[in-house]
Amino acid sequence: MAGAPPDPTVILGVDPSLRGTGFGVIAHHATATQTLDFGTIKVPAKQRQSEALAQIHAELSALIARHRPTVMAVEGVIYAQNFRTAITLGAARGAALLAAAQAGLEIVEYAPKRVKAAATGRGGAQKQQVAFMVRAQLGLTETPAPDAADALAVAMAHAQASHLPAGVTGDAGRL
Amino acid sequence: MAGAPPDPTVILGVDPSLRGTGFGVIAHHATATQTLDFGTIKVPAKQRQSEALAQIHAELSALIARHRPTVMAVEGVIYAQNFRTAITLGAARGAALLAAAQAGLEIVEYAPKRVKAAATGRGGAQKQQVAFMVRAQLGLTETPAPDAADALAVAMAHAQASHLPAGVTGDAGRL
Repeated sequence: MAGAPPDPTVILGVDPSLRGTGFGVIAHHATATQTLDFGTIKVPAKQRQSEALAQIHAELSALIARHRPTVMAVEGVIYAQNFRTAITLGAARGAALLAAAQAGLEIVEYAPKRVKAAATGRGGAQKQQVAFMVRAQLGLTETPAPDAADALAVAMAHAQASHLPAGVTGDAGRL
Repeated sequence: MAGAPPDPTVILGVDPSLRGTGFGVIAHHATATQTLDFGTIKVPAKQRQSEALAQIHAELSALIARHRPTVMAVEGVIYAQNFRTAITLGAARGAALLAAAQAGLEIVEYAPKRVKAAATGRGGAQKQQVAFMVRAQLGLTETPAPDAADALAVAMAHAQASHLPAGVTGDAGRL
């Protein structure tokens, strides 16, 4: 007689940016992955940067309270247009990390190539391919917006990494 | 007969960074500036980035609750060593902005040259000169550490800007 199936791991994937932070929540266990939620936290350009950060933090905190993930996964950032953009992107990312840290989540980071490969099998895939393959792999009835698709893809990258032998974490970093 | 003196403006200056965020609180009115508090929020290197952000946010929130400033002033960032550094610096800055936004503070940003000039009279002053002149101008009994001196200097920049004619805000930006 088989034992009860293990509890699924609930993973929150986040793709932070000041005006459009993508999020995706999946429940993963050995044999199946279920999509619980996905979308984009949109902040109008007329809102100040500080208000945008407060909104990102509040909406992610509410999302964490609703779905109770144990881990947040984000992409490692390797590129920004210039320092000002990088500082602003970093601030949005900081608001997301803070929401997760305050709720006691483990936070893991995956390289962009790894995230694309998790969704499409290829590290050099285009944004549209990522969204299309995320939809196919998760059996969604609609193609998610690019920000949400990236967030679901990084959650999938963590789900895949959880099947690696103990001690082998691929290129994941902890934040 | 002169009226009662106006209430002072309490200004929180912050110089954010992941491991050593400087802060300085001054009370300013037309004829005098009083230093209420200054120091550095130190986070050991062994602590994760997310824990550092949570500590910066918690300590600044406590500082705001204690001194009840109405405005937070920060320096505009124009340089970082590389994108990874900029993203991390941006995250620390985001944690600080978030603490201020959640407490309803106005947030203003001043160019680094303006901050140095506020403390020393010269936009190209060295870090040591800034600390020395901040001490002299505020009548402190000790020279503040560089992070705290920078934070006091940006608070002083805002105090000076408040004497400009209405509508003239110099190079201040609102965040």
